[in-house]
Amino acid sequence: MKTREKILYASLALFNEEGEPNVTTVDIAAEIDISPGNLYYHFKGKGVIIIALYEQFEAELVDILNAPLVQLSVEDRWIYLYVVFERIYAFRFFYRNQTDILHRVPELLPRFKRLLNRKFRNVVALLTQLREAGVLQIGDDELGIVSENMVLLLTQWLTHVQCRADDLSESIILHRGVFQLFSLIVPYLASEHLGLYDDVKRIYHDNVS
Amino acid sequence: MKTREKILYASLALFNEEGEPNVTTVDIAAEIDISPGNLYYHFKGKGVIIIALYEQFEAELVDILNAPLVQLSVEDRWIYLYVVFERIYAFRFFYRNQTDILHRVPELLPRFKRLLNRKFRNVVALLTQLREAGVLQIGDDELGIVSENMVLLLTQWLTHVQCRADDLSESIILHRGVFQLFSLIVPYLASEHLGLYDDVKRIYHDNVS
Repeated sequence: MKTREKILYASLALFNEEGEPNVTTVDIAAEIDISPGNLYYHFKGKGVIIIALYEQFEAELVDILNAPLVQLSVEDRWIYLYVVFERIYAFRFFYRNQTDILHRVPELLPRFKRLLNRKFRNVVALLTQLREAGVLQIGDDELGIVSENMVLLLTQWLTHVQCRADDLSESIILHRGVFQLFSLIVPYLASEHLGLYDDVKRIYHDNVS
Repeated sequence: MKTREKILYASLALFNEEGEPNVTTVDIAAEIDISPGNLYYHFKGKGVIIIALYEQFEAELVDILNAPLVQLSVEDRWIYLYVVFERIYAFRFFYRNQTDILHRVPELLPRFKRLLNRKFRNVVALLTQLREAGVLQIGDDELGIVSENMVLLLTQWLTHVQCRADDLSESIILHRGVFQLFSLIVPYLASEHLGLYDDVKRIYHDNVS
């Protein structure tokens, strides 16, 4: 692994574990056993490291969000949402100190807004497809409101869950997140698709027990 | 106002405006024109100030959460939720850097967990009352899941909305939060209470337009 990648890899691990505000560039250099000067040669400060990590996260997430979603089975949709949460989890330091980071690295704010907007449009497109396929019965206004709640849940679930329960494994945290997400559309299932809710409950219980 | 109260008042304003990690005790002392030594006489560091502010917030919120909610009109419930959001807004620095603050001031973590738990129990009690009054049709499992989503929305709405739209006034941010909260129970309204949704939409549009 090149030094640049080593730095990014170690930064991500330290940020996630100890919280980004508590990690200095000196800590990062010490972790991979290089001099602070060598680190500075690659990254002129922590802000630049945060931007590089954010770019990596954004690229991965946009790839996932671009995946075609029509005609997926319930299981496949479950896995898809799980993967979205997993990528957020991999870069959780960013979400957990979102306000503070966006304040200190203001270049990220417009990008992060665009990413949230993209998530919102993706969710709206997905629910619209499900409505056209007759799976959901939902009006336009409600579709927008439910989509906003889904984006909020996607974005804030990890921060929320850490204060709600102790010692949950990563897998349980993520499966519970997916379950909460599905629960937001369950009340809009068309009556001939109510069986979907039983499928969702089954997948959830298979994965957390 | 006594010096101690002046310090807390100025700290809250600065934390909310500039983000708690960006404000030092020296900044706070300068703001109210006292020496850092005088500030230190009252509070031995920023952690102690944060705990004092948290205690103030907690006491206010618990008072509100203890209010009897049965037999309220839709308008009164709307105002009640608005007031809850308003108190959170008044102490928003805490929510916006929640993870980081809980890491640096670990004494707060168990208290904050208890507060979230209390919010959750309050929401469950409220939905149970509405179910018993025949307003909601909702099973036990769903009641728990919806309550969790409501607590998450209450807790994370302010952090979320700042990345979603620019330059919203405080009042619009809070009314939108209340509307999103109501939207979570709308699909469970018993058919003879569907008119409640129209009331909610009317109150929302009266307040944001």
